Amino acid sequence: MRPSGRAPDQMRSIAIETNFTIHAEGSVLVSFGNTKVLVTASVEEKVPPFLRGKGQGWVTAEYGMLPRATHTRGSREAAKGKQSGRTQEIQRLIGRSLRAVVDMAKLGERQIVIDCDVIQADGGTRTASISGAWVALRLAVDKLIAAGSLTEDPIEDSVAAISCGIYQGTPVLDLDYDEDSVAEADGNFVLTGKGRIVEVQASAEGATYDEEGLLRLLRLARIGCTDIFAAQAKAAGR
Amino acid sequence: MRPSGRAPDQMRSIAIETNFTIHAEGSVLVSFGNTKVLVTASVEEKVPPFLRGKGQGWVTAEYGMLPRATHTRGSREAAKGKQSGRTQEIQRLIGRSLRAVVDMAKLGERQIVIDCDVIQADGGTRTASISGAWVALRLAVDKLIAAGSLTEDPIEDSVAAISCGIYQGTPVLDLDYDEDSVAEADGNFVLTGKGRIVEVQASAEGATYDEEGLLRLLRLARIGCTDIFAAQAKAAGR
Amino acid sequence: MRPSGRAPDQMRSIAIETNFTIHAEGSVLVSFGNTKVLVTASVEEKVPPFLRGKGQGWVTAEYGMLPRATHTRGSREAAKGKQSGRTQEIQRLIGRSLRAVVDMAKLGERQIVIDCDVIQADGGTRTASISGAWVALRLAVDKLIAAGSLTEDPIEDSVAAISCGIYQGTPVLDLDYDEDSVAEADGNFVLTGKGRIVEVQASAEGATYDEEGLLRLLRLARIGCTDIFAAQAKAAGR
Amino acid sequence: MRPSGRAPDQMRSIAIETNFTIHAEGSVLVSFGNTKVLVTASVEEKVPPFLRGKGQGWVTAEYGMLPRATHTRGSREAAKGKQSGRTQEIQRLIGRSLRAVVDMAKLGERQIVIDCDVIQADGGTRTASISGAWVALRLAVDKLIAAGSLTEDPIEDSVAAISCGIYQGTPVLDLDYDEDSVAEADGNFVLTGKGRIVEVQASAEGATYDEEGLLRLLRLARIGCTDIFAAQAKAAGR
Amino acid sequence: MRPSGRAPDQMRSIAIETNFTIHAEGSVLVSFGNTKVLVTASVEEKVPPFLRGKGQGWVTAEYGMLPRATHTRGSREAAKGKQSGRTQEIQRLIGRSLRAVVDMAKLGERQIVIDCDVIQADGGTRTASISGAWVALRLAVDKLIAAGSLTEDPIEDSVAAISCGIYQGTPVLDLDYDEDSVAEADGNFVLTGKGRIVEVQASAEGATYDEEGLLRLLRLARIGCTDIFAAQAKAAGR
Amino acid sequence: MRPSGRAPDQMRSIAIETNFTIHAEGSVLVSFGNTKVLVTASVEEKVPPFLRGKGQGWVTAEYGMLPRATHTRGSREAAKGKQSGRTQEIQRLIGRSLRAVVDMAKLGERQIVIDCDVIQADGGTRTASISGAWVALRLAVDKLIAAGSLTEDPIEDSVAAISCGIYQGTPVLDLDYDEDSVAEADGNFVLTGKGRIVEVQASAEGATYDEEGLLRLLRLARIGCTDIFAAQAKAAGR
Repeated sequence: MRPSGRAPDQMRSIAIETNFTIHAEGSVLVSFGNTKVLVTASVEEKVPPFLRGKGQGWVTAEYGMLPRATHTRGSREAAKGKQSGRTQEIQRLIGRSLRAVVDMAKLGERQIVIDCDVIQADGGTRTASISGAWVALRLAVDKLIAAGSLTEDPIEDSVAAISCGIYQGTPVLDLDYDEDSVAEADGNFVLTGKGRIVEVQASAEGATYDEEGLLRLLRLARIGCTDIFAAQAKAAGR
Repeated sequence: MRPSGRAPDQMRSIAIETNFTIHAEGSVLVSFGNTKVLVTASVEEKVPPFLRGKGQGWVTAEYGMLPRATHTRGSREAAKGKQSGRTQEIQRLIGRSLRAVVDMAKLGERQIVIDCDVIQADGGTRTASISGAWVALRLAVDKLIAAGSLTEDPIEDSVAAISCGIYQGTPVLDLDYDEDSVAEADGNFVLTGKGRIVEVQASAEGATYDEEGLLRLLRLARIGCTDIFAAQAKAAGR
Repeated sequence: MRPSGRAPDQMRSIAIETNFTIHAEGSVLVSFGNTKVLVTASVEEKVPPFLRGKGQGWVTAEYGMLPRATHTRGSREAAKGKQSGRTQEIQRLIGRSLRAVVDMAKLGERQIVIDCDVIQADGGTRTASISGAWVALRLAVDKLIAAGSLTEDPIEDSVAAISCGIYQGTPVLDLDYDEDSVAEADGNFVLTGKGRIVEVQASAEGATYDEEGLLRLLRLARIGCTDIFAAQAKAAGR
Repeated sequence: MRPSGRAPDQMRSIAIETNFTIHAEGSVLVSFGNTKVLVTASVEEKVPPFLRGKGQGWVTAEYGMLPRATHTRGSREAAKGKQSGRTQEIQRLIGRSLRAVVDMAKLGERQIVIDCDVIQADGGTRTASISGAWVALRLAVDKLIAAGSLTEDPIEDSVAAISCGIYQGTPVLDLDYDEDSVAEADGNFVLTGKGRIVEVQASAEGATYDEEGLLRLLRLARIGCTDIFAAQAKAAGR
Repeated sequence: MRPSGRAPDQMRSIAIETNFTIHAEGSVLVSFGNTKVLVTASVEEKVPPFLRGKGQGWVTAEYGMLPRATHTRGSREAAKGKQSGRTQEIQRLIGRSLRAVVDMAKLGERQIVIDCDVIQADGGTRTASISGAWVALRLAVDKLIAAGSLTEDPIEDSVAAISCGIYQGTPVLDLDYDEDSVAEADGNFVLTGKGRIVEVQASAEGATYDEEGLLRLLRLARIGCTDIFAAQAKAAGR
Repeated sequence: MRPSGRAPDQMRSIAIETNFTIHAEGSVLVSFGNTKVLVTASVEEKVPPFLRGKGQGWVTAEYGMLPRATHTRGSREAAKGKQSGRTQEIQRLIGRSLRAVVDMAKLGERQIVIDCDVIQADGGTRTASISGAWVALRLAVDKLIAAGSLTEDPIEDSVAAISCGIYQGTPVLDLDYDEDSVAEADGNFVLTGKGRIVEVQASAEGATYDEEGLLRLLRLARIGCTDIFAAQAKAAGR
């Protein structure tokens, strides 16, 4: 029995509220149950130094957690003067996941910066971030297309992410904090709308797992992502 | 004529939504027009080193702005590895303003940390932060009282803040970004519910001002704070 | 009775020793009683990136306190690896105060950097810094004029600063450390030679104050600045 | 055809030279072809703050790359003043992988710190690090057992890691730099001697992959780890 | 011919003004010609962690240069966020030089922190710092003795330092900036009042030197230090 | 009697293994007894900003010590976020020593970066670094000559370094850790193949020394460097 009473293959309710803020070219508040992340996509008409003059664009991401997004207050990374290893790991994953479905040549020599800021955390902040980020990116690109800045759509597929893990011996979908903190294994799966895999990160925590376990987690992830793709499409008006 | 069409002594609409997040002992989303700040109050059963064993409490504050809270994306302070002088100046002001109305002996040997994170900026983020912070603090203290952790209420008065400035030669109340960026003078006033002054910070920007100007700004501030005190009382259920 | 025996509206003795060091275009050792600050003005034939090519100049300031300027040794900011919030707040105030009386277009595309280093502290280091900085700036600009680099004087007015506060219920002028550390309210006032206000920063410390209190502090500040303007004029040979 | 002429399921030659340095309780120079990593295990009779007094131990890891371990010189992280996100990601993976096979209660209240420093890089530095680290850890624990500091062996299984990826459409084992830099997908697999999975991290790079692709990589990883387990056993004298 | 017209073995005029500031237990303004350093000695009734409970004291030093102590303004180390290698090298030398003549057991479990801040630089700032620091230390220890905190004098000898170098082929004493910037070799010599050597640091700059050259520099240093010892004795009232 | 049983003027065995790594233009593993340093020379076709366009080259050095190169593990500088004063002092000495024998005009507008990373420490890491660095530099320059990038050899002499000190009253050559940690005086001497002095750094540690002592250390250094020059010549194939 899961703490939340959910079935093993049951997602939390997903909500993607678009245009949550007014300045960003794309912005959403994405919720996976009590996990809430504000995601913005900012278009910048420049690229990082290593890409200058190459006629292609870039998509990158930054991630942060508000100090009291969590049960007990964590220290503010800006005050500590550095981002934790966990933060960097997550923001690298978000950027990589989005780049996997964007044709950088079609994007042209501009950069889209995704900011994922966790307002409230209850497990799965990185997967909610990726799932929301795709919508924010979609909205920002739609504006570029509408403005005539882009003639071809550089987004080739949708991308969503979900966590799955082994909780008390059972593979379960979309772990919340109560499950995540005691799970025997914990995986994050990034999938595309066409059913391809972008990234699998599955770690044993206190126990190891086997190939069958990995496949069961992956299959749960496919179930969850189906729901997310539907929510994304609706939010993006597609 | 103000860009927003407001009268010189007209505030933007104020909203203070309580319990915006679930983990913090006190939390509000405070809006002054398009400026939106998420404020949380976190109770910690410890005090900073310089107060240990002195039988009194502490209230402190941290401030941050999400990278795309603004018209163009600013860099993330956590990524840059330090808080700007502006950020530090603001968070010091917030902490000082709240401490002016709290009896630290009555609070007991515990600390309340206020986090003000700007979700969307349109001028006046520091005054919205202070005004919302008082409500978050009030809610957190109410929980301590309800739980029997406090026998006496350590909050002696309410506190609110508003910006006033001289825009195109006219003193105006509650500057938004369009006004703030070109104002000849810009002041932040922190007042208490009983009509006392906690802090005045009034800077010339490109032009100097005189005593009469200062007093006119202060009188506008009193008008604005009356509205804020009402919104605070309603939000705090007082 | 003030600890120093001074009358409530009595300044400490002011001294402004010019050309205290040999390399800087302008340099003074400014003393407000036992508070001593070495101020230098350095002319640089370049401007910060945000002003390049705009045909105007810039004045900025940095502030520091020698570790043993104070009663007990403080840690060295260079060794700690960062400037405190207090330091940044002060240096921003110094820069803003000077810029209020300089016509940046007349200064031309060059920068004047003011360095205020506190040799000995006894309260009022920021106001002594501003007051001395104007003289250092004046000397540096005079050299530019003498050298023919400037054809018009970009300095439009003089600027001075003084602290006033409420000590044991009485408004007093030019607080020294003994007063400052226990004052109920503490304000810094930056005024121009023509009687205009550049900046007011008045904070309650443990007690709040009212409009009448603010005005009494401002009037004391005018008295004090009169003395400072005289000392500045004499030092600057005007 | 692979650049090195290897068959798709062919590892590079593996060497694990023990006692490469004299001071560490365990030390090895591990080579996967031209990738060479110096790994040391240091026993410290203390634990991190969060574990104090809990009667259990800890295993953690740090990773670094010498500036000229690579084709062109990279900047020195100590000189830049921070570890990159990549470095932090890798050292977190190494620590997690080792902890998966250690019984912390049996280790007692002591910490073993693993240092992995890449002397020469040609792809696969993180997997060589994990594989070598297990031997260094084994040697250090053997010393603790020989000295009577441990009565039970806290190491429950061996652990090894290998990269696999899709190179020009073909799944291949143990990517070297020439392959790694252009692979369509790149995975790191951490397996135990008993055949269990500790961690899978498989990322698409420019192309996505499918479940069959993931399984083929995992199967290649099993082949490679068989070789590594043999080399580990021989090096550790088991 | 030296730029200053001095004879090869001629020092600049030395001045050591005691009690330059009021708070420090010992303070001097030391001048070697146009080089001026403010040195304070601060007594702290604690020792660094590595000495706690060992019944002995410590003497350490920090060094800084005001941004406009030099011909052109240098950046402020506190603002840059780190001390340069040069700064660290110098402050380590100052501390080592003083510790060579102090009996740490006699000092008791307390620390004396020397701060050397260069007000104006014209070559030889580190040697002026060491020479002045001994006087500041002497004054601070005299106060401890006078107060009865010390029963035995922990200072066993005086210590002074001077630079010598090879300028246009000729060994010269006490290099000023004009010489220092083009000298073929540059040495700093730290000697004791009893004629012993504490430290020799002699570097070729563009040319190498030989044993005879080293000895000639050392002999010049003895000449210079004789003057400094006399100035120190007079300043310290000995 | 020395702890190692060596005669006072006896070096430890020296080994210089060339081409220890494959990527660097020059690389050696240099051993002075148990002290082992990996040194690489990297050629970069650019110069630091202060030399751009001046038609001359630069040689610089960085130094690091692996955390467990020492008896007990030291913290990793990259993780702490800064290089220690000792590290900076050493890397500045290495760079200066090499530059003393290189004609920068002949090197052309390129930079050679020397990295010295201590694999295992037993005293004398900086002198082993300098001695090995010359060989790495020699190998890198030989490649530039062989490739036709240089027409004249910019290396004018060889350079080697050795430590000497006073151990239990006796001057001894090439201190190992057991001697170094208790020596009364400790000097590092950098000499050229033609018998010239590049740098002398001789510090008293707990005792002072005299001119005769300095000369005896210098003479021992000459003996030691003779051995090192022979090892360098052999390693460099000269």
